[in-house]
Amino acid sequence: MSSVRLSEWEVGRSDRARERRARAVLTRVAEPGNLKLFNSVARIGAEAVVAGLCREAAGDVALLDLRTRLDSADPERDLAAATRVGGRFLIPADDEWPTAVDDLAHVKGTAPPLGLWVRGPVRLDELGGAVAVVGSRSSTTYGESQAFEIAAECAREGRVVISGGAFGIDQAAHRGAIAAGGRSVAVLAGGVDRFYPRASSAVLEHMARHGAVISEVPPGSAPTRGRFLVRNRLIAALATGTVVIEAALRSGALNTLGWADQLNRLVMGLPGPVTSVQSEGINDALRSGKASLVTSGPEVLELVSPAGTATVAPKRGPSRPRDQLDVYEHRVLDAVPVSSPRSAESIAVAAGVSVERVLPALQRLASLGLVDGRSGRWRLCTTSA
Amino acid sequence: MSSVRLSEWEVGRSDRARERRARAVLTRVAEPGNLKLFNSVARIGAEAVVAGLCREAAGDVALLDLRTRLDSADPERDLAAATRVGGRFLIPADDEWPTAVDDLAHVKGTAPPLGLWVRGPVRLDELGGAVAVVGSRSSTTYGESQAFEIAAECAREGRVVISGGAFGIDQAAHRGAIAAGGRSVAVLAGGVDRFYPRASSAVLEHMARHGAVISEVPPGSAPTRGRFLVRNRLIAALATGTVVIEAALRSGALNTLGWADQLNRLVMGLPGPVTSVQSEGINDALRSGKASLVTSGPEVLELVSPAGTATVAPKRGPSRPRDQLDVYEHRVLDAVPVSSPRSAESIAVAAGVSVERVLPALQRLASLGLVDGRSGRWRLCTTSA
Repeated sequence: MSSVRLSEWEVGRSDRARERRARAVLTRVAEPGNLKLFNSVARIGAEAVVAGLCREAAGDVALLDLRTRLDSADPERDLAAATRVGGRFLIPADDEWPTAVDDLAHVKGTAPPLGLWVRGPVRLDELGGAVAVVGSRSSTTYGESQAFEIAAECAREGRVVISGGAFGIDQAAHRGAIAAGGRSVAVLAGGVDRFYPRASSAVLEHMARHGAVISEVPPGSAPTRGRFLVRNRLIAALATGTVVIEAALRSGALNTLGWADQLNRLVMGLPGPVTSVQSEGINDALRSGKASLVTSGPEVLELVSPAGTATVAPKRGPSRPRDQLDVYEHRVLDAVPVSSPRSAESIAVAAGVSVERVLPALQRLASLGLVDGRSGRWRLCTTSA
Repeated sequence: MSSVRLSEWEVGRSDRARERRARAVLTRVAEPGNLKLFNSVARIGAEAVVAGLCREAAGDVALLDLRTRLDSADPERDLAAATRVGGRFLIPADDEWPTAVDDLAHVKGTAPPLGLWVRGPVRLDELGGAVAVVGSRSSTTYGESQAFEIAAECAREGRVVISGGAFGIDQAAHRGAIAAGGRSVAVLAGGVDRFYPRASSAVLEHMARHGAVISEVPPGSAPTRGRFLVRNRLIAALATGTVVIEAALRSGALNTLGWADQLNRLVMGLPGPVTSVQSEGINDALRSGKASLVTSGPEVLELVSPAGTATVAPKRGPSRPRDQLDVYEHRVLDAVPVSSPRSAESIAVAAGVSVERVLPALQRLASLGLVDGRSGRWRLCTTSA
């Protein structure tokens, strides 16, 4: 983008439109999460930063890199490309701006996005309480079925489910939310007009129509490796809590977990077999206390909801007739023979309970259908637990 | 046992011998963990309690139950039965008494043992640092192989491995410790001459010869249901830490976990698939923070060892050449084409890095064998990570 073209598009536009175009330029020339650039924009404004770059007068030497791509920057083309696919480019001045991402200003070594390229009807200022479900691309059936189910349960409770649109766990999470009739949002490392991986196209198309697909880089941008990692910080920032399902030791999902942790978001992990390489990373995070252990959707909802509003009942096994017994009745029951009936006296000795106590106990056991007493001799009922 | 026989065996014996016989009587007439009995013994001594029971003058009505089995009590017979199988009956006055079990005096609703029937060469005063490995009887191959391996790794480090001799996880733990050439100890719910379950006989016989088999009830006693639960408190008390592997929601292993917790012992749990009923109870304990998550023997050893003496190195995935790159080199590498070589200038634009910075980065990438540069055009090495 030459300085001539820059001054052309600045003429006759509203402040907001000029700001939007300047930020569009910056998302084209800079990699996401550039803290020096974010600070410059905060100090002098996006338009002044762009103007400085065009004048070759970028005060900060660290911003010099940004000049490398300046010639290829064309905000009109990028904005038009977004419009063509029904998208929009959000900036912090917009009502729809998701202020949750501004929390990234408090995380060391990164910065909030300068703008967000978005497709889809879900408004980003209405993601409150969203749950991120992320994990390994090389997932197992175990992990995928859990991601699907947890996402579906969150979606059924009205939660937006956020993930990265990748193979494996991410896709299973998106699909689970969609199958439950809920809303799902994908944050991509490349442009929102460029669905990657191809195998995710169908589910990404669905979100572009019914949910949202978000990126920090302009349409047409490639999903480079580095962009996947900075993309993860947006997933963590947009969600109230992040659930990691299946992450090997170097999984990108652990990177998302780290961002969520630094953002003081809820960090949850689903355990897996200790023999599974796909669960090794998340099991390790659970062990070191970096994530809270969850085993189901309701447990996720309990953690991301205000205290007391989605409490999961304590888990209990099946109840048994024995549960109602006191310590003496238990002991007497243990002493009642299976086959040959015995007298109360003989049972008292076996149980170590006085004869005075053994009779009431046997009568109560009989009332519960646990023992059977005939002509003063007792034995277990065959169906007793 | 009549009062006549009682006075007979008291004549001409040392205090210690009389004390031992009185306590042997009490282990016969009372169920383990009887707090009132323990308190009476603490107040007036075991001999006086037995004498009181024989005189039908047990002051405390709660001790009346103990008279029920008094007639069948015969300490000489029980001590002889123990001797016959090479066993012994330990009392708190003995040097070999494992004082760790006295911690049970501080746990509500139970009491330390009045004596311990023991077979095997392992001295109970030398169990310091022992690790208990317990779990479901209806275990899976997953749980059994983990129990075996963790027990073996603890045993290799000289730890005594304690368990309950039951089917499933308990047996796998004993076998793992024995296979590693280590010492294993079983705490039984029935008499030490009565191996239950039968299928465990071989491994229990091995421990009776090379480890130890312990019970609170005298030889010949039946392993009643109630005794399994009080037995669990001894496993927890004797061990520095308890590892639970596979426990369904109502598993007895969770009862052991509860005792270990109340005793302020280390409580550890191995996670399992959330889809496995056999892991549901331990996953729940891990979730609620009742147990610390462990995934291997070294992690168990780290927790049961003094801080810093058995530290497990942080888990890392395989290292890759990319790990040595800085943020610029990463970004440049992402921009180097796989096939058709490109100029440094073109790579600089793709990477968003100034040309001044791109050349040193490309040279470093070449030195790491990641990229290949010929006549000023660069591409990825085919083997690059």
